[in-house]
Amino acid sequence: MSGNVFGTMFRLTTYGESHGPGLGGVIDGCPAGIPLDEAMLQRELDRRKPGQGGLASTARKEADRVRILSGVFEGVTTGTPIGFHVENTDHRSNDYSAIRDIFRPGHADFAFNAKFGLRDYRGGGRSSGRETVSRVAGGAIAQELLRAEGISIFAYTVELGGIAARLIDWEGAQDRPYFSPDPDAPAAWEERIKRVKGQGDTLGGVVEVRAICVPAGLGEPVFDKLDARLAYALMSVGAVKAVEIGSGCGAARSLGSENNDPISPEGFASNNAGGILGGISSGQDIVARAYIKPIPSIAREQRTVTRTGEAATITVGGRHDIAAIPRINPVLKAMTALTLADLLLMDRRLGLRE
Amino acid sequence: MSGNVFGTMFRLTTYGESHGPGLGGVIDGCPAGIPLDEAMLQRELDRRKPGQGGLASTARKEADRVRILSGVFEGVTTGTPIGFHVENTDHRSNDYSAIRDIFRPGHADFAFNAKFGLRDYRGGGRSSGRETVSRVAGGAIAQELLRAEGISIFAYTVELGGIAARLIDWEGAQDRPYFSPDPDAPAAWEERIKRVKGQGDTLGGVVEVRAICVPAGLGEPVFDKLDARLAYALMSVGAVKAVEIGSGCGAARSLGSENNDPISPEGFASNNAGGILGGISSGQDIVARAYIKPIPSIAREQRTVTRTGEAATITVGGRHDIAAIPRINPVLKAMTALTLADLLLMDRRLGLRE
Amino acid sequence: MSGNVFGTMFRLTTYGESHGPGLGGVIDGCPAGIPLDEAMLQRELDRRKPGQGGLASTARKEADRVRILSGVFEGVTTGTPIGFHVENTDHRSNDYSAIRDIFRPGHADFAFNAKFGLRDYRGGGRSSGRETVSRVAGGAIAQELLRAEGISIFAYTVELGGIAARLIDWEGAQDRPYFSPDPDAPAAWEERIKRVKGQGDTLGGVVEVRAICVPAGLGEPVFDKLDARLAYALMSVGAVKAVEIGSGCGAARSLGSENNDPISPEGFASNNAGGILGGISSGQDIVARAYIKPIPSIAREQRTVTRTGEAATITVGGRHDIAAIPRINPVLKAMTALTLADLLLMDRRLGLRE
Amino acid sequence: MSGNVFGTMFRLTTYGESHGPGLGGVIDGCPAGIPLDEAMLQRELDRRKPGQGGLASTARKEADRVRILSGVFEGVTTGTPIGFHVENTDHRSNDYSAIRDIFRPGHADFAFNAKFGLRDYRGGGRSSGRETVSRVAGGAIAQELLRAEGISIFAYTVELGGIAARLIDWEGAQDRPYFSPDPDAPAAWEERIKRVKGQGDTLGGVVEVRAICVPAGLGEPVFDKLDARLAYALMSVGAVKAVEIGSGCGAARSLGSENNDPISPEGFASNNAGGILGGISSGQDIVARAYIKPIPSIAREQRTVTRTGEAATITVGGRHDIAAIPRINPVLKAMTALTLADLLLMDRRLGLRE
Repeated sequence: MSGNVFGTMFRLTTYGESHGPGLGGVIDGCPAGIPLDEAMLQRELDRRKPGQGGLASTARKEADRVRILSGVFEGVTTGTPIGFHVENTDHRSNDYSAIRDIFRPGHADFAFNAKFGLRDYRGGGRSSGRETVSRVAGGAIAQELLRAEGISIFAYTVELGGIAARLIDWEGAQDRPYFSPDPDAPAAWEERIKRVKGQGDTLGGVVEVRAICVPAGLGEPVFDKLDARLAYALMSVGAVKAVEIGSGCGAARSLGSENNDPISPEGFASNNAGGILGGISSGQDIVARAYIKPIPSIAREQRTVTRTGEAATITVGGRHDIAAIPRINPVLKAMTALTLADLLLMDRRLGLRE
Repeated sequence: MSGNVFGTMFRLTTYGESHGPGLGGVIDGCPAGIPLDEAMLQRELDRRKPGQGGLASTARKEADRVRILSGVFEGVTTGTPIGFHVENTDHRSNDYSAIRDIFRPGHADFAFNAKFGLRDYRGGGRSSGRETVSRVAGGAIAQELLRAEGISIFAYTVELGGIAARLIDWEGAQDRPYFSPDPDAPAAWEERIKRVKGQGDTLGGVVEVRAICVPAGLGEPVFDKLDARLAYALMSVGAVKAVEIGSGCGAARSLGSENNDPISPEGFASNNAGGILGGISSGQDIVARAYIKPIPSIAREQRTVTRTGEAATITVGGRHDIAAIPRINPVLKAMTALTLADLLLMDRRLGLRE
Repeated sequence: MSGNVFGTMFRLTTYGESHGPGLGGVIDGCPAGIPLDEAMLQRELDRRKPGQGGLASTARKEADRVRILSGVFEGVTTGTPIGFHVENTDHRSNDYSAIRDIFRPGHADFAFNAKFGLRDYRGGGRSSGRETVSRVAGGAIAQELLRAEGISIFAYTVELGGIAARLIDWEGAQDRPYFSPDPDAPAAWEERIKRVKGQGDTLGGVVEVRAICVPAGLGEPVFDKLDARLAYALMSVGAVKAVEIGSGCGAARSLGSENNDPISPEGFASNNAGGILGGISSGQDIVARAYIKPIPSIAREQRTVTRTGEAATITVGGRHDIAAIPRINPVLKAMTALTLADLLLMDRRLGLRE
Repeated sequence: MSGNVFGTMFRLTTYGESHGPGLGGVIDGCPAGIPLDEAMLQRELDRRKPGQGGLASTARKEADRVRILSGVFEGVTTGTPIGFHVENTDHRSNDYSAIRDIFRPGHADFAFNAKFGLRDYRGGGRSSGRETVSRVAGGAIAQELLRAEGISIFAYTVELGGIAARLIDWEGAQDRPYFSPDPDAPAAWEERIKRVKGQGDTLGGVVEVRAICVPAGLGEPVFDKLDARLAYALMSVGAVKAVEIGSGCGAARSLGSENNDPISPEGFASNNAGGILGGISSGQDIVARAYIKPIPSIAREQRTVTRTGEAATITVGGRHDIAAIPRINPVLKAMTALTLADLLLMDRRLGLRE
């Protein structure tokens, strides 16, 4: 297995399984002088804890206390690699024994088995959602670097179970259930969740990420376009099935005269571009949306096969979430932050020399 | 400027501007023994020539004869780097002088200027669509590698100007105008284009890429998921504003019981997953869609600013395409091929050892 | 600070300072199925402990207990990243306060200050010899991978303080003081060390590394030649000032007829090439030598300057080693193992191997 | 085959065989605004032409006219990738048919065959010395970048056939035969070469590279030390068997009090460190030496085996050089320049932020 390293200049390497000793990572490339302490990482980790979204989340208790192992001295980064670790405290392997020899539809089981010839049935190993602990901690470090440059990142739920938020107050969203940008949406979402949960079913939704105060100029013109890197980052999160930038899918159905953002001395008149032109940030807000599929573990009976290829049925009970939202929100925020931090450092390097 | 290298194991490095001596690239990492000649590259380059889609394309004549410079001996690859070059033959710089000091809305101009402090106004330099010549040639090499493994890739237009194809015959699409998978769609598209062109406006659309006979097991579980790498690849192409895998955006509005693909001893009963589970190919067809924005160069007057920030209007005439489709199709096909070739070689490396 | 990642396919990322919470690293790319436990890492870490070489080493007590954090299940690697950590237990910062504002000749102090504008005076931070703990642990994992392929690596002292070993018994060297390949050398070396130590001075020496049973074919023909990668690996260890392969410096003074290794059906008649032809392993033993400078911390008075540039003298006392040998030996062994493991996995990928 | 890419920030990708259409490469990462034209590349290519060193070089005529394909506009770099190509004009494949099925001792033949199962017998393919054409051209671009920072690089012969230069006038060396730093050495070297050539034998030597006016601070503290990267760069050149930095091998036989360079307010009193402390440039001259083995193609009979393993003898006649010096000198200069350019850009990126 490869692919456990994210980024080029601001580089996160992660490790850890859901049922081993713990999870963690190393940030290589963080400049010195950035204020950083464990509380900053913990705050983001706490956002992905169960309980941020009422009914949607599992009851599994995860303390997830993070420890910084290097790279910080007297409250600021030293420029050396930043190691961090989160100990696993609640691993009950026996919960998973029922699914040891059967493939859960919609899960990684089938493909993992095809690739590796075995799989860690104890909750998915590296394909477990728990892997994102390391992303959130690493992303928290990226966010502090960005904060030092005046950049802030938000991730908020714009749709859940087919019900869209009507108001987009992204700042307020951070303190509302489901990271909802609309004070009225959570009630409707709770109701929808309750009904679907009663049917043994699960739900998907849409999360928007927004980066504000991003300077113009981030992103590289050909392969490492800001939108390409952002799509890569967001799509690397388990349940994401589509990524759009700015007007996104809608752009494909617009006329050029509708989709172009007019420019005036006061700035852009609209933001269909999602803050990215030619793969490079324009100075407007960076706006992207991730489409999240429903959690594949449903309590309804499904047709599947065993590892030896025989027909079978499966009903996945247990302490599973009904929707990946809102626990996925801080993960998407982290991936956005890691992407911007990397491109920010990449840009520093090769600006035009006067 | 960085980011002119794509891939890790099967690596394409590109160079070239629309108005310099030429464009080309180097493939590093292609195994030896793959049949390859210039005609194979030329065939893909010819697909991106104007004229594949009737009215949609510019009249600019581009010969685009490719020459292989190394890495091939007696009709097969030798395992050494494959250099290739396409000479520019038709560059009339004076066409562009009118836009030298003004930013075209929807174009890279503004962001390029912010990043580099200057821009190559002669047609966009590295942000020109002409940059994709190198992608198509490199992707043709990737396609030959994949062919040797039994894998084929198709890119076909499923929607243009808001009008969807009703039939998806991807094999037939290769020989139809607009790479249309539906014999009836081109007539409707032509009509739509004619009307919009008459209004001085432009159109977007949706291109689907499909890889068939992909073995299960490609993609790495965490950051280098097949869908993440594919989203990166497709979104790196200029006009793409959204990428979806399988059921894509629709998954976010489905129930888990609807979106999961049931498995039986005969295989999967549906392909909402787009052939990817947990970031790893499942053996089903890989299916992704790229949403293409309308060409930003419109013949209608738009508000903008000059390089010194004064209000201005601009009307972009000239020999521009009305839609990026169908010339973008072989580019998306190339990027899909490059992604799969890279993950194929990456997978070779670290399979489980019995 | 960048450059904390070593390797491409078998990749070690390290973190940690001499006076922070601890040191560790992550191996990304280790195949599944390799037997591995903490005792295997500990055994190599114990080799770099003080006390392996009698008088040469410091009295500083370092427990260096390693803990594996991920990637191993039931005694074998799972193919996921392998995290490991060594807690720092003995850090007395006050020992170093005397050198806070003065540059020690021969140390990294001056250059670090020039680069970073500050330095971690508490023992050197990332420039401390203690950084090699992570290399040794990571290298131990590489050695287990190589062992599974039948490859063994040895590092032994062929010269110390100008006195050369006369016998090269590399297998026996592992259990002798100073990892001496000659049973008689340690006594002479001890005497030399004792005299030099009495003068407040320090010594250098030469360590040879040898990899046996390496299959022919490792290394890539142009930039990633096996000898180039090995020179990089060995020279990245603090005190190394020269690296030679096979006949090394001597080759420059030989005739072609003397330096070429004749080939017969029974194999090569000599090994001036050090087991590497055209950058690729030939199947003979891989042999390289690292030339180690004397420890720069001497108890004799030296001329230097303060951070503000004023003339000063310095006498570095304290608990310092007299020679980097033998504690550097397991580090050089580790770097050799990491290099071979990386090239072994790189070769798997793209050779034309029938 | 992989490993045809050198560097991270300032990245050279090369292609080309000795007997294909040509050789070339792409520089990705060169900042905009550096003066550059084909004459600058040609000047360095001309230095590796036969005839720079009197008797030592082959009579093979190589025009080696370089063409820049992209990335330069009106005499300065634009920041986009710089493609360049050198057409092969003099390839007589039949010269090599005699060695098609036999391994030349000291050459890459045996190892290539073991790795790839075949080899390009037409002069070595990618293992040919001709591959260095791309290095020299790419290195010339690096030298122009360094020149813009005030840095100059020299490569001069300090020893040939066991006869050392007595005077080290590196500036004058550029215009003397054999790039000799000593006006008197070439005569002695010519005589030595003449005698050895008469015996059908070949010679090695030592080349020193020196970079002057390098700012303090280049190099990264752990794996990407300046000396490690330089050793990698120099050792990747075919005939190099040892690399030393500063006092090099001599350091291993010195006392700490002898090897440390005292510091005074006026600067360092000596340069045993070769300008590198803790892997980071100190502001002194960077000094390294490469030990070059004798050309393995000798006109004397040698024992070897055929591809099928039978005993044979071989006498390699033909138009071969007697020593790799002086044609290797501009190659070593190029590799030094590429290394420094890369570390210079790497350093820019992550300096301490006040």
